Order: sequence, then structure tokens, then C-alpha cells
Amino acid sequence: MDHKKILLGKIKTKKAVIGIIGMGYVGRPLAELSSSAGFHTIGFVRSQKKADSINQLKIRNLTATVDKNELKKADVILVCVQTPVFKNKKPDLRDLKNATFEIVEHLRRGQLIVTESSIAPGTTRNVILPILNKSSLIEGKDYFLAFSPERVDPGNKKFALKQIPKVVSGISDDACDLAVAFYRKIIDLVVPVSSVETAELVKIFENTYRLINISLVNQVHEYASKINVDMWEVVNAARTKPFGFQAHYPGPGIGGHCIPVDPYYLLDDAQKKGIDLSLIEEAGKVNEERPKKVAQRALEIVTLSNGFHENHVKSNGHFLYGTKGGRSLSNKKFKALLLGVAYKPDIDDPRESPALKIWEMFERLGFEVSYHDPYIPEFNNSKSVKLSKENINKQDILVITTNHSSIDYLELAQYKKPILDTRNTYSTRPPLVFGL
Amino acid sequence: MDHKKILLGKIKTKKAVIGIIGMGYVGRPLAELSSSAGFHTIGFVRSQKKADSINQLKIRNLTATVDKNELKKADVILVCVQTPVFKNKKPDLRDLKNATFEIVEHLRRGQLIVTESSIAPGTTRNVILPILNKSSLIEGKDYFLAFSPERVDPGNKKFALKQIPKVVSGISDDACDLAVAFYRKIIDLVVPVSSVETAELVKIFENTYRLINISLVNQVHEYASKINVDMWEVVNAARTKPFGFQAHYPGPGIGGHCIPVDPYYLLDDAQKKGIDLSLIEEAGKVNEERPKKVAQRALEIVTLSNGFHENHVKSNGHFLYGTKGGRSLSNKKFKALLLGVAYKPDIDDPRESPALKIWEMFERLGFEVSYHDPYIPEFNNSKSVKLSKENINKQDILVITTNHSSIDYLELAQYKKPILDTRNTYSTRPPLVFGL
Repeated sequence: MDHKKILLGKIKTKKAVIGIIGMGYVGRPLAELSSSAGFHTIGFVRSQKKADSINQLKIRNLTATVDKNELKKADVILVCVQTPVFKNKKPDLRDLKNATFEIVEHLRRGQLIVTESSIAPGTTRNVILPILNKSSLIEGKDYFLAFSPERVDPGNKKFALKQIPKVVSGISDDACDLAVAFYRKIIDLVVPVSSVETAELVKIFENTYRLINISLVNQVHEYASKINVDMWEVVNAARTKPFGFQAHYPGPGIGGHCIPVDPYYLLDDAQKKGIDLSLIEEAGKVNEERPKKVAQRALEIVTLSNGFHENHVKSNGHFLYGTKGGRSLSNKKFKALLLGVAYKPDIDDPRESPALKIWEMFERLGFEVSYHDPYIPEFNNSKSVKLSKENINKQDILVITTNHSSIDYLELAQYKKPILDTRNTYSTRPPLVFGL
Repeated sequence: MDHKKILLGKIKTKKAVIGIIGMGYVGRPLAELSSSAGFHTIGFVRSQKKADSINQLKIRNLTATVDKNELKKADVILVCVQTPVFKNKKPDLRDLKNATFEIVEHLRRGQLIVTESSIAPGTTRNVILPILNKSSLIEGKDYFLAFSPERVDPGNKKFALKQIPKVVSGISDDACDLAVAFYRKIIDLVVPVSSVETAELVKIFENTYRLINISLVNQVHEYASKINVDMWEVVNAARTKPFGFQAHYPGPGIGGHCIPVDPYYLLDDAQKKGIDLSLIEEAGKVNEERPKKVAQRALEIVTLSNGFHENHVKSNGHFLYGTKGGRSLSNKKFKALLLGVAYKPDIDDPRESPALKIWEMFERLGFEVSYHDPYIPEFNNSKSVKLSKENINKQDILVITTNHSSIDYLELAQYKKPILDTRNTYSTRPPLVFGL
């Protein structure tokens, strides 16, 4: 039996059943795309509650289940689980391996398995393939293994998932062909590359590019601050160059599930192979330092605005009112309100958000911290506080960590509280362009 | 007398005389733009021979001279001299200071001085302004000092000088206004920024961005080679992402008068101010290493293709024919031909070209080196050799250091000589895109 030909036929006639493991920010929109294209789609989730919440929506062609036996029904299985890093920045492949073990338990002839999770080069061939081969089915003949990295950009209103070109690769050429055939049914542009390692490196390189450039602008921002130059103005002027430049802006640190994670997958594998990726290491360090610098800057501001002298500030958090002579008058614990704890504006995802590290740094400096985020009701064992007059008036400083567009920043400024604006929300200097 | 108003009037009616110091790759096209816009333009050069060669062309409104007394006639003086670095990577401002001393000798009321050379933030205010102030004329009243960094991209056929937006700044607001007024007459879009330091940082940041990203792709290229992935294919696939990525390609090292230079101006000033720009330092190191890696790779190739064993190769350049047992048979000096010594394709500028460093590394490894470049007849005390059968047949390896488009690379491949292609000239893998 020519399993490739049969599956190709099912894909072309949209009779193929699509199984998606993981219905998060990657799997969920993919499931909606595939079901709306006419494929019967099954989303595999961990909790019955989540399955129910999806099934309640009664989306045409889409069902969610916790029952892994249903994997047998799927002709195409897309693996969209998270691939984070451990605290020591080493790849955490537990979810990916678990998903692969579940697949191999139900693997049958004629199935195409595609991983979408970001992984280090070599992971498809050296981690996933050996697990699937335990089935004693043969890749490229009985079943097909492909890799096509997700490029989802949460909050991006300019490009829908369908419009973001899809890089596709396969262990066997047939696996690649089948994955190309499938994605062509749901994505506008499909870009096959010559090996799974190539596709794996593409995704990680894209995010490494972002890490490096955000780190660069953050580092040069420190220099710009020192010479009283507005780094946002510099970037806005630089981006008027019509070639050879892409704008990245300073911020309080990197966040999300890609940029602080993917480069470490690359770094880890490169280290194993004796290749020095010093730029990634250095960029990582620069960003690790950002939350600390935000907290330190806040401390400078509150000590100045409270008439303190910096040399009288103790690091244990109990600050001394004092004069130049150093006479202490009273103890006080500063209060800081973090505005926005999602990792970027207008989304509800706090994963790897720099706000958490800033919070920790603030506490280490002795601040009492609270936060407001319209999209995240709970964060760091606290609840989002209202932006009421009472809540704001008791603060010593407001820190804009993420600039959600739903917050009225001009109203906030009326309180005359010091505001540390890490996102240039109050920019008064749009670039002036005189021209034709 | 309102000198600003008078000069503004002259600019608007194109009665202002424009003086340009330095008629190189920056000053020359600027002079052509200004003269063709209708401004009488005087180019100041060092040698009578160069002045004659320009004057021979009889370009309307444009004359060249070595006579510095003519500076008096200029209402607007554009300083377009080179600002390189010394061997130790510290800024070499000798030409800029000399030009400024010449200006101050003839400075008169109502002149606008604009520097276009790339310089570190603070240079206009702390180096140029004090020299001009020795005239006892007052900036912002008697004369005007502006800074507007050149953004010339030699060989760029997509954007003419006129189409590249011009960032403009002034010591005084009036200086900025006047410079904006002038550039608006010759450039499509003018972008005023709030201080000279901002404009100085803009230019250096643009080129620092390029340094960092070229270094990144070169470093990841080493990893890709190790895992047998084609880095050019990775970049071509990554660039299909419609946001958050800009393509840079691997190469034999950085070249030209900007990218290997400007970031060190920034680094130097940041070090003086106690700011750590570790990413620039690291990126610089990565690129310094590239020529060595090219030469080492060439050595690997020739030893393999000549049946040598690497461990029999001596570093003094006399290579031993040998067998695995190590019996030496004869001495031989390998021959390498460098193809293209300009710092980028289709231009005739070898400044800071990585080819020179590759040449030196080759010689250190004992190679006999020659080169071919259709645009550069002399280089490193040698003459460009013809791509004749005789010249090619005697080589052990051909190294494409710059891929000028006028060379017939397919013909070259017929000689069956090893070719080390640092520019992906022989790419057989254009990205396949399947889509709508």
C-alpha cells in the first residue's frame, strides 16, 4: 500500500482528520484555521474543563477531547506543546516527549506527525524520531515525520496566521511533501526547506535575531541615557533609513515564550558541539540585567522625589529620611505600582514577563509592590488593584512595565506621582519629517 | 543684521554658494546633487590633479579647487572628510580637525557649517564647536553649526542619494532650521532631530546594528556548518517571516569605511563614560576572527584535495607531501587566488576589505597569494592577474572573497579547482515557495 498516496488524497479532498496536541496560543488558532478550511479537527487537551469550554463553542468541524485513544483517528497530528527552559536555561522537552510517547502508543500506518514547537536543531531526528521508531513502523514508508515551526505573534493585528508564510521540512522527502500539501490548504504561502535541521534552525535564528537586537538597543539605551539622548528618538530617526536597518526599542527586559527561551536551545546545542555563540550569551546577560536597572532607577527617583539622599538609602528596604548630614528621622517602606504585567501590550499572557523579575527586584530593594493589569486578574500571588484615586495616591512611584492601550495614561499623569515609563508611553517627540 | 534670515533667503532663492570639503564617495555625489539643483557649488580637494579631473567634466554650477581661500565665498560648508580609526580602533579625527581649522581661518558671519562625517556623540559640540569659537564669532548668531550624517550606500542601485531621508541637527535651533532648509532643496525627505548628539548617535547606531547582525549570522554560520546546514538557506527561509526579521548573510568578514569603524567610535566614548557596550566588543571580535577562519578552511581544503594529512602541515608555509606514516616527500608552497578584493560587489573600493586580512592570514599559513578584481588594478602591492587558463591552472585553490557580478563563475568552475565560496555565489538552492 502506498501510504503517501492515500494520505495525499485525503488531504486534497479534505477528508483527512487533523489532530492537534496542545490547544494554547499555537494549537488553538491552528485548529480554527484547519476546521474552518473544512478538515475535521480534534484538539487534544489535558483537562476536561478545557475540552468542555472549547466544545461549548460548537465550532464547525472542531471538537476537543482528553481521550488520547482518539489519536488513532487523526491522519495528520500537529504537536503544539510548549518547549520552555529550566531555571538553568537548559531545554525542557518533557511536554514534547510526553506528547510523542502518546503518539507512538497509537501510531498507525498512514499518519503524518508534524511538530510545531520550537526546538534545537537535531531534536526531530535525534529525540522525536527514535521514540516513534519504537513502534517498529518505518518513517517515510509507514508513517511520516515532519517539522514546521510555529510563527504565531500574539497580538499582531497586521498578519493573521494564514498570512504568515510557513517553513516546512520532513525527515523523509515524502514527509515534507505531505506536510507541504497539508499546510497549503490552510496557509497562503508554504516554504519547504531541505532538512528538518534547517527548519529547526530557521525558527531559533529568527528569535535569536530579536534577542540580540533588543539587547543591543537596551545596551545603547544605557549609553544614550548617560549623554541625555532619547533612545526612542534615535531609533525613530534611524528607521527613516530605507535599507539596512530594522527598529527595535528599549524596554524593561525581554518576555514571552520565544525570545527568552529559543536562543538558549541553540546555545545549549552549540555548546555540546564546541561552537562558541558568545553573542547570544552576552545578549542574554544584558537582558537579565534590565529588571534590576529598572528597579534601581525607580529607587533613585523615589529617593530624590522624597528629598532623600541616595547615600542614606539602605538596601534592606527600610529607608531613612535624612538630610545631607545624615540625621535619620523615620523609617519608610516605599510603595510601587506596576502597570501592565503581560509580556507585551494588549495580550493576557504573563509568561516570562519582565514584570515578575522587576517585582522581585523591587522587593529586594524593600519596596511594597502592587500591580494593575486589565487582562491579568492574578499575578505573583497578588490581585490586580484598581486604578482608583485612593490606590494611586498612596504610591511613591508608578512603573509602566507594559503599555496596554486601554489605560488612560494622561489621566494617570494628573496624580503628579513620579512615573517610570519603561515603554516610552509619554513620548512627546514623534519624529518630524519635512519633505516633498 | 539677522544672519539667519539672510542665509535662509539665499538658500530659498538658491543664491547660496555651497562649499564641500572632501570630494570622495560622500562629497562627490552631494556636490552633484547640489549643483544640479541650481546651487553654485565649490568642491575643495587636496590635489590639483583631482581638481583638474573634476573641472574637466564641466559640470554645470560645479567647480573644484585646492585654494582654501575660496571657503570665504561659501555660504554653506559641508564637511565630508573621512573619519577612520587608528590601528588600535581609537577614533582618528585628524582630517576632521584639519578641515575645521581651515574653516575657522576663513569663517565669516552668515555661514552655515554642516559636518556629514560619522563621529561619536559629543564630537560636534566638544571638538568642532570649540575650534570654530576661536574665531570669536558666536554660534547661533554670527555663524551656524549643524550635523547631518551621510547615509551613502555605495553600489546601492535601489536608492539614489536624493531618496535617502536625511537626519539633521544643529547646535542652535537656527542652525538646525538652516540645515533643514538647505537639505530640503536637494533631498526628498528631511528628518530634524532634537540635538547634535541624537543625530550623531543615529548614524553610529545604524552601523552598529549592521555590525552586530553580520557578526551574529557569521557566528551562527559556524554552528550551521558544523551540523551540515546551509546558513544561506536558513536566512532565506527566515526572511519569509513578514515581521521581526531582517536578513543578513554570512561572509568572510566586514569591510568598508563604516561598519568596521563607526561602532568603535561609539565604544570609545561609552568606555570613557563608564558604560559597558559588551555586544559591540564581542561582535567586533567575532568579525576579526573571520579572515583567519577563511584561511584555515582553505588550508583544510587544499591539504585534503592534495592528499595531505592535516597533521603533516607545517605552519611556516612549507608543506610536506606525506602519507599517513608521515614520510615527507617534497616541499610545496600552496597557491591561492583571491577573487574580488573590493569590500562589496560591483564597487571599486578596497578600504577595510576583509580580503586584505585574508591575504595576510594566507601568507602567514605559507600560501603564495595573487588576486583578480576587475575594478581594482592594484592591491596590497600586487597587480590584478588575468583569469587566464594559465593563471588558474597553477592555483591550488580559488577563494571568492567578493562576488562581483561581471565574473563568469560557471566558466571558472570548469577548471575543477577547489573553490572556497565565502559569498554563496554558487548557491543552487533558491528558496522554493509554494503558495496561492
